[in-house]
Amino acid sequence: MAATRLSAAEITAFLDEVFPGSMEYFVIEDVRPMHARVRMVFNEFRLRPGGTISGPSLMMLADTGLWVALLAMIGREPLSVTSHLDIDFLRKPGPADVIAETTLHKIGKRLAVGDVLMYSAGESAPCARASVTYAIPSVRLDPPLE
Amino acid sequence: MAATRLSAAEITAFLDEVFPGSMEYFVIEDVRPMHARVRMVFNEFRLRPGGTISGPSLMMLADTGLWVALLAMIGREPLSVTSHLDIDFLRKPGPADVIAETTLHKIGKRLAVGDVLMYSAGESAPCARASVTYAIPSVRLDPPLE
Amino acid sequence: MAATRLSAAEITAFLDEVFPGSMEYFVIEDVRPMHARVRMVFNEFRLRPGGTISGPSLMMLADTGLWVALLAMIGREPLSVTSHLDIDFLRKPGPADVIAETTLHKIGKRLAVGDVLMYSAGESAPCARASVTYAIPSVRLDPPLE
Amino acid sequence: MAATRLSAAEITAFLDEVFPGSMEYFVIEDVRPMHARVRMVFNEFRLRPGGTISGPSLMMLADTGLWVALLAMIGREPLSVTSHLDIDFLRKPGPADVIAETTLHKIGKRLAVGDVLMYSAGESAPCARASVTYAIPSVRLDPPLE
Repeated sequence: MAATRLSAAEITAFLDEVFPGSMEYFVIEDVRPMHARVRMVFNEFRLRPGGTISGPSLMMLADTGLWVALLAMIGREPLSVTSHLDIDFLRKPGPADVIAETTLHKIGKRLAVGDVLMYSAGESAPCARASVTYAIPSVRLDPPLE
Repeated sequence: MAATRLSAAEITAFLDEVFPGSMEYFVIEDVRPMHARVRMVFNEFRLRPGGTISGPSLMMLADTGLWVALLAMIGREPLSVTSHLDIDFLRKPGPADVIAETTLHKIGKRLAVGDVLMYSAGESAPCARASVTYAIPSVRLDPPLE
Repeated sequence: MAATRLSAAEITAFLDEVFPGSMEYFVIEDVRPMHARVRMVFNEFRLRPGGTISGPSLMMLADTGLWVALLAMIGREPLSVTSHLDIDFLRKPGPADVIAETTLHKIGKRLAVGDVLMYSAGESAPCARASVTYAIPSVRLDPPLE
Repeated sequence: MAATRLSAAEITAFLDEVFPGSMEYFVIEDVRPMHARVRMVFNEFRLRPGGTISGPSLMMLADTGLWVALLAMIGREPLSVTSHLDIDFLRKPGPADVIAETTLHKIGKRLAVGDVLMYSAGESAPCARASVTYAIPSVRLDPPLE
């Protein structure tokens, strides 16, 4: 498997450039071929009554996490858009960071598909699982990944 | 089909009570048995670069819209939680209100399931579709709806 | 909305030609622009212990139903393939025909997306809901539908 | 993590008993806590024109694979039913066995949720991914797994 095209620092810089502010609460902890780990830093505004992280926050984390894994592979490409996301909420995440472990299963000519497992910091059982599909513009990968 | 247990005004008051602020940008336009129409009022903070409403905003609308339809049927019940959500993004919604037309297909003993179609104000083709499952506490409905 | 390119009879003939036997248990009852109704005729081999129609049979019906709606719009095009399917099983369908009411929400340049509601014959509440995405080859529609 | 309640051989015997014939084309290759690997043995009747394994066959494999993982944990319990399944078709699987690697993420009081990756025999890239939710009757696990 080829190395990634972009490092964690390069992806962070790129996202800050094309979506200013989008990485304010996200830290890219690791990128490897077809994988990324992204941390959503805790903030009070994410809490629902009862003290759990809101569902939309987890959806945004899943979406961001898989986009990071995709950018690592295809490089500075702002035009990919989410076409499908599904999420199962498994356990209520308390007031803490949430870590997304993302795995790409395919980067095709038109679609990229992957899975996300999310963990409240310090927990070994996931608080949510998600899968996400991105519609991607024509991508030239050498070697091809499909 | 029995009438709804709660009116649009009663649901709005209930949500404001249990999730303060949650209805600041949402207007319940209609509730009927197993259906609800909810409008997400446009605000600049929902925009992504390119001037389209963000994906997490649409996910929140889908989730809220179906919850409104559920509350209309089961009454003041704060303990329902989303267990699954899936969404397909179909067309980019511009800077305008988005309207969710929601339909419940089942309110079972443990799960409620429904579909959501979302439309940018003034458009006839949907910008997104979603389906949502709620885990509900034991609900006594008379007559039962399952 | 333009009329459909193919009638129910033309779609049946086409599917019998490209997938011999595929329509043996399916009857196309109605096609209209962006909609189709397809009946899966009951057969003993679809039953699970307990006398209910099997899940894979319902999945096949959802997939077939939406494909029929798509073919009605785009014409004799054998190369579309299912890229995503999700299904919620709502009520156990007994030993009877199952009817799929399908609605396309988008036929884009690369993807077509729609919803399916399935009903055991004679029932008014759906036994399952599904959404399906097709990856489609380059399609020339006049007027365009996206 | 506690050991599994049932071995591969015990699960096969149980499924043959409650769903006669259901394991004719499936081989349980491995069960571990929260994991199972199930092989769908190739048969001509699974082929679509073009020589690829049909979508409904992969859906049945995903469903069966996760059920095996669940039975390993909760024991001889015939009453679990699939409530949700979603699948992404990633690459066309040729005429060969397909192997499902399944992982349970949660066995709750009412729902069990897991992921499935499917591989055509000899391939390292998955031909499909799926997630499946089972509605389970009241289960007494010692220790609890939720």
